[in-house]
Amino acid sequence: MKIIDIIEKKKQGSILNEEEIKFLINGIMDGSIEDYQTSALLMAIYFQGMNIDETTMLTKYMAESGEILDLSDISDNIVDKHSTGGVGDKITLIFLPLMAAAGIYTAKLSGRGLGHTGGTIDKLESIPKFRTDLSIEEFKQRVKKIKTAIAAQTLSLAPADGKLYALRDVTSTVDIIPLIASSVVSKKIASGANHIILDVKYGSGAFIKTAKEAQKLSEIMVETGKRLNRNICAVISSMNQPLGRMVGNSLEIQEVIEFLKGNMEKDLKEITYALCHCAFQKTGKNFTKNETDKYLDDLIYTKKALDKFREIIESQFGNTDIILDYSKLPQAPIKFEIKSNITGYIKNIDALKIAKVCKDLGAGREKKSDNIDYSAGVYLAKKYTEFVQKGETLAVIYTKKQDIINETEKNVLSAYEFSETKPIEQSLIYKIIE
Amino acid sequence: MKIIDIIEKKKQGSILNEEEIKFLINGIMDGSIEDYQTSALLMAIYFQGMNIDETTMLTKYMAESGEILDLSDISDNIVDKHSTGGVGDKITLIFLPLMAAAGIYTAKLSGRGLGHTGGTIDKLESIPKFRTDLSIEEFKQRVKKIKTAIAAQTLSLAPADGKLYALRDVTSTVDIIPLIASSVVSKKIASGANHIILDVKYGSGAFIKTAKEAQKLSEIMVETGKRLNRNICAVISSMNQPLGRMVGNSLEIQEVIEFLKGNMEKDLKEITYALCHCAFQKTGKNFTKNETDKYLDDLIYTKKALDKFREIIESQFGNTDIILDYSKLPQAPIKFEIKSNITGYIKNIDALKIAKVCKDLGAGREKKSDNIDYSAGVYLAKKYTEFVQKGETLAVIYTKKQDIINETEKNVLSAYEFSETKPIEQSLIYKIIE
Repeated sequence: MKIIDIIEKKKQGSILNEEEIKFLINGIMDGSIEDYQTSALLMAIYFQGMNIDETTMLTKYMAESGEILDLSDISDNIVDKHSTGGVGDKITLIFLPLMAAAGIYTAKLSGRGLGHTGGTIDKLESIPKFRTDLSIEEFKQRVKKIKTAIAAQTLSLAPADGKLYALRDVTSTVDIIPLIASSVVSKKIASGANHIILDVKYGSGAFIKTAKEAQKLSEIMVETGKRLNRNICAVISSMNQPLGRMVGNSLEIQEVIEFLKGNMEKDLKEITYALCHCAFQKTGKNFTKNETDKYLDDLIYTKKALDKFREIIESQFGNTDIILDYSKLPQAPIKFEIKSNITGYIKNIDALKIAKVCKDLGAGREKKSDNIDYSAGVYLAKKYTEFVQKGETLAVIYTKKQDIINETEKNVLSAYEFSETKPIEQSLIYKIIE
Repeated sequence: MKIIDIIEKKKQGSILNEEEIKFLINGIMDGSIEDYQTSALLMAIYFQGMNIDETTMLTKYMAESGEILDLSDISDNIVDKHSTGGVGDKITLIFLPLMAAAGIYTAKLSGRGLGHTGGTIDKLESIPKFRTDLSIEEFKQRVKKIKTAIAAQTLSLAPADGKLYALRDVTSTVDIIPLIASSVVSKKIASGANHIILDVKYGSGAFIKTAKEAQKLSEIMVETGKRLNRNICAVISSMNQPLGRMVGNSLEIQEVIEFLKGNMEKDLKEITYALCHCAFQKTGKNFTKNETDKYLDDLIYTKKALDKFREIIESQFGNTDIILDYSKLPQAPIKFEIKSNITGYIKNIDALKIAKVCKDLGAGREKKSDNIDYSAGVYLAKKYTEFVQKGETLAVIYTKKQDIINETEKNVLSAYEFSETKPIEQSLIYKIIE
């Protein structure tokens, strides 16, 4: 078998078979296939696509290119969750304690953020002393003991995906739906959980721009997961506006705690509850959606979920004082209130613009080696459908950088759109694929 | 400017501008653009194409990526010829002495053959002591003195093309018409001649399979050449059957000499004369085609062209005795006659099959480092429209390899197709583009 024949085959629009995909992944791993050949193939896939059989095989062999985590000694009923990423997306940190409080195992390995805002691991690391660099043994012990743990993905899960992704990133071949699907699902397969809950976002603040694309991606991921013997579902939701009111690492931790204390932002609640409902169905809790909502409300209002969050922080060596005293979290020296220069209803807040503002403020990183300012970020005092008077506070920025405040103010204001009449409340959830 | 933006732009089907193409070629040359990025772009070009503006700019910057030969001290009326390659294609070796005999300067730099049969340089090197490794000064001196010279392309003409071609060869992106055009024309631009005569072949023995593709390629090459201020034309001809009767290096030298002695094979004559006619027109000899034919016949029958061939051999240190005594050329120890097992007319001889036979016999190379057996090859005793009796000699194979004779016989026989009625004589020339 020769890689050039595989490239030619895909170039001509043919379907690659299992042997060819296995050969490709092996060749990528052992270096016998050159990057310039792989990238030519990737571009051919951009134009010719991959069907579900090819996607499934690619996913399988990428997952098998490295270690596959064995969690079977804990339970054969373990949930993993993945978000395709959004602005202000702190849902994992609400989902895990809720699941644990509901008695369901979750085991979450997470990457660091790269882009406009931090990732979940960065958010957790804004909690003083919190450790995410758990060994696999430490990780599993905690899942066993308190039903959940979250660690930085240090060991090489699905390393072929890592190699492929690095190449896609520099060859303009990231936006290929079957490859995105394979990338996500292969890492989830390798993570060892048997239930996979996917949180798929589309819109200005997500890398997928349309609901249609998000649906296509979700259908492929769900079908691929099923064929590889996983219980899987995808919740598709809109990410045109930031999730919640806080964007930035320690600010989002604060919002998570507020949520678990019962001060639930509507948008966060809608999506979190939908993901929990999926997880319940997959793990055998046959609730109606109403029953799920009531059950989750109960876990919140009885503080059971908050207690679980405290347990997570404790078991991972973090300072639990932050739950009662936010001043123990990193604090930005500058808190600048941005006033509205318009009276009216909030019609839209451009998530991408807010994300860019946060990166400028220091909350995100461009290169892996960049440092993050955990305290930096934005608080959105007014959100969709809310009314603001001219002169009233629209948002607050948190930063160390005095010199960019004027520019940031301008950028935040430009992210807001207003209307004279109150916009209609809309569900964020577009569809659930299972 | 970033290469990833250029890749994305082409991926989306946009037209690259001059700055972008210049950036690309500079980046390929200085190594700042990685091969894996170039190959992704090449595959995007396969799917999205390049228009004539892009092709012209690519050609220009590839030509300028290395030295451009300056022949202006010899004449500003110098012809170069290029063939896209065919089986038994010895036309350059007839064209050059004819041109020189007609008083027209030609300066021919040529690559070594890679593939089924040798290249023009290999054919010449089968002449004892013939030197093709001329320095630029030696090369130019000879053009000045005897109006023609032919040397191996040792200096790096259009080195960006060389780099691009090496990458295309291993990423299944060779078959992209604008890139083929740029590759050919950039080297011709860099070779310094102001008139370019292209011999474009299509058919089973050529890398372009259809007349339509050959026409498209020719149109692009001619337009590109014109835009870069060259006098250029392309003669498109069919290469379904080998050219002439001899395939193999020293065998083809023999056929060239026979031609120049007046024993002209019809197919060789048709194409050579058409190419010469183009060259006459470009250089200001305003002959009708009939006048050209008569003029060339005269150069042949008066032996003026043969004398020029002798002069070329002499000026490049070769043994001119071969002109009168073919036994001074490398001789194969085995000459095996293949007899026809059918009585009938020759309907077709598959050029590709004959080429493969020649490679098996030792006449071609697969890798640059392979040695060639100059004496190996095939003589086609019977060609298109000719009649053969069962038991009569169809072809002769020349080789050192006793052990493959049976297999070769089978392969040669399978290249022949017969018919009971005499096929119609057909012109090989499909079109002339200028």
